[in-house]
Amino acid sequence: MIHKKVDKRIPIPAYYQLREILREKIANKEWKLGEKILSETELSEIHGINRMTVRQAILELCREGLLYREKGKGTFVAKHKVERDLSDLDSLTSYLQSLNLTVKTKVLEFKAVPASKKVAGKLAIPTGAKAFRLVRLRFLNQTPFFLETSFLPIALCPQLIEDDLAQNSLYDLLENKYGLHLDSADVLIEAISADGSAEQHLRVKKGGPLVRLEQVTYLDRHQPIQYLEAISRSDKYKYHLIRQRRKGFHL
Amino acid sequence: MIHKKVDKRIPIPAYYQLREILREKIANKEWKLGEKILSETELSEIHGINRMTVRQAILELCREGLLYREKGKGTFVAKHKVERDLSDLDSLTSYLQSLNLTVKTKVLEFKAVPASKKVAGKLAIPTGAKAFRLVRLRFLNQTPFFLETSFLPIALCPQLIEDDLAQNSLYDLLENKYGLHLDSADVLIEAISADGSAEQHLRVKKGGPLVRLEQVTYLDRHQPIQYLEAISRSDKYKYHLIRQRRKGFHL
Repeated sequence: MIHKKVDKRIPIPAYYQLREILREKIANKEWKLGEKILSETELSEIHGINRMTVRQAILELCREGLLYREKGKGTFVAKHKVERDLSDLDSLTSYLQSLNLTVKTKVLEFKAVPASKKVAGKLAIPTGAKAFRLVRLRFLNQTPFFLETSFLPIALCPQLIEDDLAQNSLYDLLENKYGLHLDSADVLIEAISADGSAEQHLRVKKGGPLVRLEQVTYLDRHQPIQYLEAISRSDKYKYHLIRQRRKGFHL
Repeated sequence: MIHKKVDKRIPIPAYYQLREILREKIANKEWKLGEKILSETELSEIHGINRMTVRQAILELCREGLLYREKGKGTFVAKHKVERDLSDLDSLTSYLQSLNLTVKTKVLEFKAVPASKKVAGKLAIPTGAKAFRLVRLRFLNQTPFFLETSFLPIALCPQLIEDDLAQNSLYDLLENKYGLHLDSADVLIEAISADGSAEQHLRVKKGGPLVRLEQVTYLDRHQPIQYLEAISRSDKYKYHLIRQRRKGFHL
């Protein structure tokens, strides 16, 4: 295999040339998914360009989701498959940011609705009381992978409707703007078949398997702040968690 | 609605009559799924029979999985849907026992095999080294809901092949017979479509949605003891877990 190198004689910026060389190595599987790539120093020596230029190329590919960096470990080819750690109650946005991935969010619906009996039960509000209904579709690398519908009791965050839920993390807003303290969440996970709406939004085949997650998020004192129904594509997004053996289990 | 009562004049045992009366109340949805039923004292007074007889009827329905008892809370109509708590690393057998449900286990395969590259990687043994392959199908109320394939390094539990894995909990054997200390497990969850084997064993439609769980179970010092691949029917079995907001997350 001929190793392409950055050519300083042509009028294309070095970072751009390197970025496209790296992109090709990933696309043609010379560098495999999950594999560690050469260090910045090595790339800098091979291509005869300085490390800041190498870093610029790498950071751009990280932003696109093709690579990711792990502190103290190096840079790796992204698997294009997120393994979401469910142990922590963190926002999807900040979780993906911690992996140096950028999630794009499209708000499909955001309005006040009267709570159905089911939603009211989950949020511990009277049936018919007002709740925000927020429907968001999440993208990674232009691919939709996560469709979520959240219900929140209006009384606890009445101004939320004015906030931009495409650019901001919902949990960040609740905590930092509304002073609410998220505490924990109850989660239920099952498999379902994609219906017409899932087919349209997640671009999967009708009838195909999806993970459905149902979550009630609590503030202190077990006060519900969010009822969430989310469906996701397992080819892009899996759930990861760690189970611990309870001490003294066999007393 | 006419309330049927135990009739002491007919030659059918009182516990049997009561059991069938209770079964009918569940079957015709007079008592809803998850609902608390009358106490033993109340049933004893209504039907004019002693509490031991009432208890016998209830315990039989618990064993069948139609009812379950919670200590200090009462007896409830079982949902026929297990919501498995994934936070603890416990055995399926003991988890269901804690709900007063009896799981039936059929061993489909149990033998020594050379570890494939994938299995060897998960178990941290050389490719081709011997591992036990244990395939078990789990039933609740005669309905198959969970099909699991476990791989275990033979070197850590060489005599396991002589044990009865239909009657015994694998984790109980590993801990109490082989003196191994289970510590934790890494779990990955996704949705898949039922293939021919799932269709046959779990009695679901081919292509239907299933949850697939992949788990590596560790002893102390992160020594792998089990690699598990399990598929389950979400109409009978969901996963439940609790997420905690990490303290100091927003420093």
